[in-house]
Amino acid sequence: MTDTILDRRDLRFQLFDVLDTDSLLSRPRFADHSRETIEAALDTAEKLAQEKFADHNTLCDKEEPAFIDGKVVMRPEVKSAFDAYIEAGFLSARASFEEGGMQLPETAAAACTGMFTCVNPSTTVYPFLTGAAANVIRNFASESLKQRFLLPMMAGRFTGTMALTEPHAGSSLADIRTRALPQDDGSYRIKGNKIYISAGDNELGENIVHLVLAKIPGGPDGVKGISLFVVPKYRLNEQGEPAEHNDVILAGLIHKMGYRGATSTALTFGDNDDCHGYLVGEPHQGLRYMFQMMNEARVAVGYGAALLGYRGYQFSLEYARDRTQGRHAENADFSQPMVPIIEHADVRRLLLTQKAYAEAALAMCFYGYRLVDEIDTGEESDAREAELLLDLLTPVIKTWPSEFGLKANDMAIQIFGGAGYTREYPVEQVWRDNRLNPIHEGTTGIHGLDLLGRKVWQAKSRGLQLLAERIMRDVNATTDSRCVSFAKALQAMLPKIQATTEVAGKLLAEQGPTVGLSNANAYLQLVGHVVAAWMWLRQANAAVSLTAAEDQDFASGKLQAARYFFQWELPRVEVDVQRLLEGDRIFLEMEDRWF
Amino acid sequence: MTDTILDRRDLRFQLFDVLDTDSLLSRPRFADHSRETIEAALDTAEKLAQEKFADHNTLCDKEEPAFIDGKVVMRPEVKSAFDAYIEAGFLSARASFEEGGMQLPETAAAACTGMFTCVNPSTTVYPFLTGAAANVIRNFASESLKQRFLLPMMAGRFTGTMALTEPHAGSSLADIRTRALPQDDGSYRIKGNKIYISAGDNELGENIVHLVLAKIPGGPDGVKGISLFVVPKYRLNEQGEPAEHNDVILAGLIHKMGYRGATSTALTFGDNDDCHGYLVGEPHQGLRYMFQMMNEARVAVGYGAALLGYRGYQFSLEYARDRTQGRHAENADFSQPMVPIIEHADVRRLLLTQKAYAEAALAMCFYGYRLVDEIDTGEESDAREAELLLDLLTPVIKTWPSEFGLKANDMAIQIFGGAGYTREYPVEQVWRDNRLNPIHEGTTGIHGLDLLGRKVWQAKSRGLQLLAERIMRDVNATTDSRCVSFAKALQAMLPKIQATTEVAGKLLAEQGPTVGLSNANAYLQLVGHVVAAWMWLRQANAAVSLTAAEDQDFASGKLQAARYFFQWELPRVEVDVQRLLEGDRIFLEMEDRWF
Repeated sequence: MTDTILDRRDLRFQLFDVLDTDSLLSRPRFADHSRETIEAALDTAEKLAQEKFADHNTLCDKEEPAFIDGKVVMRPEVKSAFDAYIEAGFLSARASFEEGGMQLPETAAAACTGMFTCVNPSTTVYPFLTGAAANVIRNFASESLKQRFLLPMMAGRFTGTMALTEPHAGSSLADIRTRALPQDDGSYRIKGNKIYISAGDNELGENIVHLVLAKIPGGPDGVKGISLFVVPKYRLNEQGEPAEHNDVILAGLIHKMGYRGATSTALTFGDNDDCHGYLVGEPHQGLRYMFQMMNEARVAVGYGAALLGYRGYQFSLEYARDRTQGRHAENADFSQPMVPIIEHADVRRLLLTQKAYAEAALAMCFYGYRLVDEIDTGEESDAREAELLLDLLTPVIKTWPSEFGLKANDMAIQIFGGAGYTREYPVEQVWRDNRLNPIHEGTTGIHGLDLLGRKVWQAKSRGLQLLAERIMRDVNATTDSRCVSFAKALQAMLPKIQATTEVAGKLLAEQGPTVGLSNANAYLQLVGHVVAAWMWLRQANAAVSLTAAEDQDFASGKLQAARYFFQWELPRVEVDVQRLLEGDRIFLEMEDRWF
Repeated sequence: MTDTILDRRDLRFQLFDVLDTDSLLSRPRFADHSRETIEAALDTAEKLAQEKFADHNTLCDKEEPAFIDGKVVMRPEVKSAFDAYIEAGFLSARASFEEGGMQLPETAAAACTGMFTCVNPSTTVYPFLTGAAANVIRNFASESLKQRFLLPMMAGRFTGTMALTEPHAGSSLADIRTRALPQDDGSYRIKGNKIYISAGDNELGENIVHLVLAKIPGGPDGVKGISLFVVPKYRLNEQGEPAEHNDVILAGLIHKMGYRGATSTALTFGDNDDCHGYLVGEPHQGLRYMFQMMNEARVAVGYGAALLGYRGYQFSLEYARDRTQGRHAENADFSQPMVPIIEHADVRRLLLTQKAYAEAALAMCFYGYRLVDEIDTGEESDAREAELLLDLLTPVIKTWPSEFGLKANDMAIQIFGGAGYTREYPVEQVWRDNRLNPIHEGTTGIHGLDLLGRKVWQAKSRGLQLLAERIMRDVNATTDSRCVSFAKALQAMLPKIQATTEVAGKLLAEQGPTVGLSNANAYLQLVGHVVAAWMWLRQANAAVSLTAAEDQDFASGKLQAARYFFQWELPRVEVDVQRLLEGDRIFLEMEDRWF
């Protein structure tokens, strides 16, 4: 329907007005980059996304991958897109020039890859997982494993997966049963079942490199006994070419509600006791290594949700401008033409709410990517702070866009009305694709536990303190009269976060985690909304700084969305604040037999 | 998955403890009925729903009706279900014994038909629309039309539709272009296009009776010039048998996100200038007649949404009790077995929230059906009050269950986790089926306008006054200490509704509808939440009256859900109250060019 993907004007705003990416470009690693080179990379990404990814997004929803004779059969457009992505170098967008990369900051690289997710989240999963798996191998695996697997992955010859979940255990990784038996040659024999493995089988490369969590017998209980293995679909011969089948069997495909173009697989490892795995790093450290990939994936999930939120918003905005229906309420002259539905206040409500959700979600994700850049290229103390803050924010960046990007998509459907409910229009698929995001890489519930049970207490709560400091920095920098009320409202939330955190901390200390974490979701919603409000203060402050005449409509839109968020959205979490302060036990005390 | 459909214990509670259906059974029309006869009718409905409707709900989602050679081709199970429904007499559940009906109160008849909607909303649409169209013909059409069309419809030989929407006009009925040209024989020639016509073509009967809105040339502008016609697919011969094709062409099927088993059609009337239509009642009164069907359909949409909300809740409750994952947070002993996920507080949150939404929605719909019974069989003044109150509540009953039933279904998906996102489990289809409900029979936005622009002012706002009186009656009847805080919180909302209504009234009077209605959605959400809270007070009061030992768990569940609603849900509309009192103009003032 639409020809634009991500609004380039807004992207520039996020990168250069809100985030000051210019300051990043003065660092040695990015010295060869400028606004112009980044814009050029974005041009390339946008063009490629249009030409090679957008074409089969709907097609692969209708003709999803099939399981035929034990193999996966996919639409050929996916391979064509994957190859073009590799060819254009986006898998190496952050890699150094010496490695053949673009040496882009993460912030800019993410802006580029966002183009692909926007138009075809399913196909984009394949290069994303390959890149993320490659990063784990690069950071933690032996030189020999790197030689054999990393290079072909970066060349797009091998694809990658992360194989964590097992049918009986779901989110409870402590309970995985996949076993790795050590062999005399230093390798392991892997045996177990995994489920929901995205890209777990595909027709894109010569081989598939599974990063598999498994337990070596005799190791510690629970998550401390988990190790990480490289398990290829085909074992490599001495020339490093895929040769014998490695006893990894595709047991079946999962038929999903959306995201259908991406295979989701059930895999059996070692059914014939001949599945060879290669330990990554040290034994029993697997979850720590995998968490690098998982944290990257968690931010990416939030980002993907934000992008789909944005995508639905743009589709519905275009529709609302184009579709005529009814007249202004004062006008009873039926001989006059109908008006575009964007003229109706309730349609504008649905659009403004989507804008408020999608653009806060996007800003939140870019803020996270900017922290990655700080970790990579900042001064040591800045890098350490960025690491603590990103750790704290990861559950928020994963969940808030997932929850509110999806709500935005629901509103996009509503604007299309009956048409939105049909597969003839694009928004119902956007919703279905996005619905996965509050589930995978840890459900929203799990991230509530992660935030309140772990992240806020790390490093003596330094992350939370940093969050408050950064927020106050933006509050104090607010001078324009149009933004002062936003800053005040945001500042007023900080003591509430502090107080609710103290109550939860006391409950945790005195009554243990079952009681202390029973309202973790409310806490996550509270912090999420505060972070979103912060993103709106930052955008509002940046908007009032735009002085060019041609920017004034854009700036007015940002200010109106900020006002919407502060007046209509942020106050709703007062309920969560109150219940958290009371230590409300309603969920805890609800008995099974009362349902 | 589950063997129960609607929880019979809860149904009994709704009908006999909350609603006092017993008092209804003492009225002459229902003298032959008792709790036992109603339970027997429910048994029959439940059994038939299980045997003939549940079997193909998923099947028809996968193999939706196809458009082949200009005709619709459907799974044969649908006709078998339709015929069994007619055979069992549920189309005539409310009709008198003399007419061969069951002479049930609407409240009880709805409980019966709810069984079918629960397990297969798509197939249930066919008898529902047939019955609703038959009611319009019964009430407004000439004896001759009744003779020819009503009897075969009630016998299930002809099916019915309501053909309102046109492609260019959508919700704006004033702008329909379908024309009806008067003929010498008293009939009309119909010419025009209709879209989203549910059941508009099907293989269930010998004929299809479309109730078509069209304009007779020379009539008034806008909705005042709309007339209603009976337009059969096949014209009847002198024996009343379907004969010649009536120039109603199936232009195509709409491919929906859900509700796939129900055909949604694009129809062309009179492409060859040979489509005969028969005027119902007087010219230009069509919308008034159709509103009877539409009001019935609107309550039914809310009820359908409530039932699907309930269905998803029950699926996810069963899953949460069955599925084991993880342990209590205090327990680090991994040798112990995992616990059912219902043990986790956040899963209980998702279940309790679903219960609070679904059971309030259900109570709201039954309250509406009870008003229908009062209109039909109450004393004159009671009947008049019931009519005013039902008029006021119809937009609430239509929208609140649609919005919150859907939110409940989203939570059901979340409880299933990855499994919930797959078509191997039932909840994603429940969500997709339910997503239609905030759209059809008037979007939520339209109902906001209906409530604040029309319903609250009717009969000098007597409907709103009645609502307050009925609420106060229940507030004053609250004596149990477990319910007093609920009553107080509910009572405190009444002046807020009054104040926001006054502000809106002032804006409407002084500045016209564009300004006065720009926050109509917030007003609808506010009234909706107050009505839902009222339903929880009524359920809580009824629950504390249950004295039998075996009822205590059930009663505790009701009280906990009420507490959830009053503490976690109702306070969130304070934001709407504040913005309404301020007459906030944010949506009004958001300019198109700022997006």
